Amino acid sequence: ICTDLEGVDPARITVALVWKPPPGFLASLPNLRLVVCIGAGVDHIVLSDPEFPRHIPLVRMVDPGLTQGMCDYVVWACLSLLRRARHYAGEQAKAAWERHSLPPSSARRVLVLGLGEIGAAAATTLQAQGFEVSGWSRGPKQLPGIKTYAGSPDLPTALAQADILVNLLPATPQTQGLMNADFFAHCAPGAAVVNAGRGATVDEEALLNALDAGKISAAVLDVFQVEPLPADHRFWAHPCVTVTPHNAAITHPDSGIHALRRAVEALEAGQPLLNLVDWERGY
Amino acid sequence: ICTDLEGVDPARITVALVWKPPPGFLASLPNLRLVVCIGAGVDHIVLSDPEFPRHIPLVRMVDPGLTQGMCDYVVWACLSLLRRARHYAGEQAKAAWERHSLPPSSARRVLVLGLGEIGAAAATTLQAQGFEVSGWSRGPKQLPGIKTYAGSPDLPTALAQADILVNLLPATPQTQGLMNADFFAHCAPGAAVVNAGRGATVDEEALLNALDAGKISAAVLDVFQVEPLPADHRFWAHPCVTVTPHNAAITHPDSGIHALRRAVEALEAGQPLLNLVDWERGY
Repeated sequence: ICTDLEGVDPARITVALVWKPPPGFLASLPNLRLVVCIGAGVDHIVLSDPEFPRHIPLVRMVDPGLTQGMCDYVVWACLSLLRRARHYAGEQAKAAWERHSLPPSSARRVLVLGLGEIGAAAATTLQAQGFEVSGWSRGPKQLPGIKTYAGSPDLPTALAQADILVNLLPATPQTQGLMNADFFAHCAPGAAVVNAGRGATVDEEALLNALDAGKISAAVLDVFQVEPLPADHRFWAHPCVTVTPHNAAITHPDSGIHALRRAVEALEAGQPLLNLVDWERGY
Repeated sequence: ICTDLEGVDPARITVALVWKPPPGFLASLPNLRLVVCIGAGVDHIVLSDPEFPRHIPLVRMVDPGLTQGMCDYVVWACLSLLRRARHYAGEQAKAAWERHSLPPSSARRVLVLGLGEIGAAAATTLQAQGFEVSGWSRGPKQLPGIKTYAGSPDLPTALAQADILVNLLPATPQTQGLMNADFFAHCAPGAAVVNAGRGATVDEEALLNALDAGKISAAVLDVFQVEPLPADHRFWAHPCVTVTPHNAAITHPDSGIHALRRAVEALEAGQPLLNLVDWERGY
């Protein structure tokens, strides 16, 4: 993370713990043997550093605290949509007491997009809360008691049967702008959106149009195409949008150090590295 | 619920489905055999109708939809506290992007006060979400994997070890004002409060004092001493208080009819009535 190497011989660096290394920086370290990224997503490295020395293993973070934080965020977001939390916060500001009969979670169908470590855990947690959960992923995945869909051909069917779409997809060339006008056109009328994956997977203009048209009823968004979200972005003041500042889950320093140590130990013992990034797949 | 009996012979009424019957009204029905209340709480009848014909069985509602709705509310409230939802809603209003590292649910200890049908379900659901859960009730209760405390002598110990207190107690003469200055004095510094039980169990002035002193960090409140909450009540504008209009869970008409039919069938078959109110206990 610190790229000021004054007084340090670059040849002495064998392991790098990084978040967003400047493009080309890692390529400048002649004896680098391992790169550990402190986030679960590595798209900012895979998509932005063409000089990355791809023969060196890049390990991403799969941190139990991070997964728990994501599950907390996703359940909070779905319950906030179900319980119209943004509406009631506005009512509170007006000291207005107006009751609606709200449905229980069991009356709402949630589709989780992306069934990796975090997506699978989120789907299971949403189901434990009471939601009716299904999942969609690039390739076929099986989860106990959860209906799953796979690949582009299944996407319209998966979308049409869901009331809340939870996006936990990684940013790859394939998922770039996946949630676009065509995507929203396939959603059930009045469906709601949660994005805790990556901002690049959403066409933000298309989402705003779908919200304004009432096709999508509400959104809870933690990630954006540009972060920090610009102060004049329409999401901030939109009555149907809840914005959080990409804080669904932040890696705790202890977990980062633990993952680093585990990766270094595996490398030195010649054992397989866990959570190794596949450059073809992009995560 | 309809007390206008014009054209109806009171002697023909044998079963009443009620929410808040006017005091004395049920006593005026000579052939009444069964009263079913459409809420889980019956304190408004038990405490307010001295003329209630107590030899007639009073059944309260235990409705799976109601229990699910309460579990949804309680998990939403605890996650909203954990994730500082009211703070971030204020940040959104200012288009301010400021990240805090938020703890996962597994780092927060929740004490559920009241372990009846709803309290037990809420404790289990909070635990499934990831919270560290304990419970307190009037008499000893056992719940798998959850530490439980019982009775007044245990209360200070139970309070001291919790970060979030979830009140699901019924209103009875014993629980009236239970959450008072003495109660808050026993809480861990900065503990937060959720009340989805009954407003009468909270001394609202004591809660406001504890909030203003920082002894209690935040509250999510669905029930109040006076409902609707008066427009000039300090809770509405308090920066640390989230107000919802007693809508944690509202009985669905289908569930009410189902409970009514089940109670009538049990009465006619001479079988024991489920969820029969014990007048001594008060619920």
